[in-house]
Amino acid sequence: MTRSAPRPPRRPAAHDRGEGPPVVWLFGLHAVRDALLNPARVKRRLILTLNAANRLGEDALAAAESAGLTPETADPRRFPAPIDPQSVHQGAALEAAPLDWGPVEEACAPRSPQDLVVLLDRVTDPHNVGAVLRSAEVFGARAVIAPFRHSAPETGALAKTASGALERQPYLRVRNLAAAMETLKDLGYAIVGLDGAAPRPLAETLGAQPPGPVALALGAEGPGLRERTRETCDALAAIPSATAFASLNVSNAAAVALYAARLARPPA
Amino acid sequence: MTRSAPRPPRRPAAHDRGEGPPVVWLFGLHAVRDALLNPARVKRRLILTLNAANRLGEDALAAAESAGLTPETADPRRFPAPIDPQSVHQGAALEAAPLDWGPVEEACAPRSPQDLVVLLDRVTDPHNVGAVLRSAEVFGARAVIAPFRHSAPETGALAKTASGALERQPYLRVRNLAAAMETLKDLGYAIVGLDGAAPRPLAETLGAQPPGPVALALGAEGPGLRERTRETCDALAAIPSATAFASLNVSNAAAVALYAARLARPPA
Repeated sequence: MTRSAPRPPRRPAAHDRGEGPPVVWLFGLHAVRDALLNPARVKRRLILTLNAANRLGEDALAAAESAGLTPETADPRRFPAPIDPQSVHQGAALEAAPLDWGPVEEACAPRSPQDLVVLLDRVTDPHNVGAVLRSAEVFGARAVIAPFRHSAPETGALAKTASGALERQPYLRVRNLAAAMETLKDLGYAIVGLDGAAPRPLAETLGAQPPGPVALALGAEGPGLRERTRETCDALAAIPSATAFASLNVSNAAAVALYAARLARPPA
Repeated sequence: MTRSAPRPPRRPAAHDRGEGPPVVWLFGLHAVRDALLNPARVKRRLILTLNAANRLGEDALAAAESAGLTPETADPRRFPAPIDPQSVHQGAALEAAPLDWGPVEEACAPRSPQDLVVLLDRVTDPHNVGAVLRSAEVFGARAVIAPFRHSAPETGALAKTASGALERQPYLRVRNLAAAMETLKDLGYAIVGLDGAAPRPLAETLGAQPPGPVALALGAEGPGLRERTRETCDALAAIPSATAFASLNVSNAAAVALYAARLARPPA
């Protein structure tokens, strides 16, 4: 399960189409280090305290230099990066461009019948999306796809929760989720939507899909999948619950769904 | 999969043994409402803004009155509860006693061969523990067990992430986790520890255990299970990963382990 590195954009990036933030401020030693070491990440400005510069690592500083960046040294008491003052930045912040993973038809073009994709329908909490990216990487998913509107954008908080996965796990934002789902169907994916009210359990539903790649659709806690998203799924499935009133956090539901899909489609 | 409500303590509560906080401040409309409606929760002080009092619900206010509590009306700009000023309290806070779920040998005494228990070895982040409680409830686990030291105590932040599960899902804190594991073994539980370096995958390991109840042990991210905890497990298992350097968030790993255990021990 290898995956190609993100390519330099060959068309106007999302933000030039008015669909995303033009910049992202990454913070924290781990996230800044991962981004500096990612050759596909366009870096613009690096701010470090002396302590953070010492802790960041020679390789990350060398990568910054190769990218033409001179770190700005900052006083820890007056850290100048425009990030939430509550953020645990550890004295390191990097202004960068969002990654461009290309269109759905390229990023998700099937390479094997075991391919998996995750669709997030209006999941707005960056911590949840970050955890989903992390799980998607663990289970070897090709991409996580979310609409531009009402979804967590690529931010420093998301990057921190993703614990490095943001640099490696394709996270595609699309204008219209239902259209992306139709594209996935054209590519041969069976789309299984998670819905607590669905009569069939997840494992059985996954087993009943024709051989081939699978996309898993999850909605936000509370509203769940939107009507249009639900209708576009090939099948709906529930994670069996012992109680009627309890439900999983969305990132936990995504991890369970990915695990179940891997059981149904074991890697070759 | 029914479960008994917590009983009034019949022996000194944990905090009188010097092992836990004597009080817990719960906050947020949802958490305060759930706690007020829980007859087993000892309530001490209720603080509400006028707006929160209107939104809390007649039944919750009636439950407060039955418990002999008179709500203190608070100015939202000077909310007097001793909670983190960053907390999203929504104008509602409740001082309460931690719940006492009784000793391991009673709370986990097997009722069926499908019984599940979760052991958390030094998981300190309240958001992770809250999410684990929520998943434990969904999958009908008998209890979540953690040591007193180096584990997230019952706090308002934990309650909020648990989304109501804190009032219903037994969360036992013990002096010594390895001793609690021995107690579980005496009760007939097979203990499976999650360890990314274990050679056998989770589903296979669970399938290889003798019929009967199962306890799942998870460690903190990074250090994983402590040596003593690992040695006390009956078997170690890995959640298969597509990459060597990625790992699941601990609450996601717990949800996957609970789901896998439910597949191996389907409810009767």
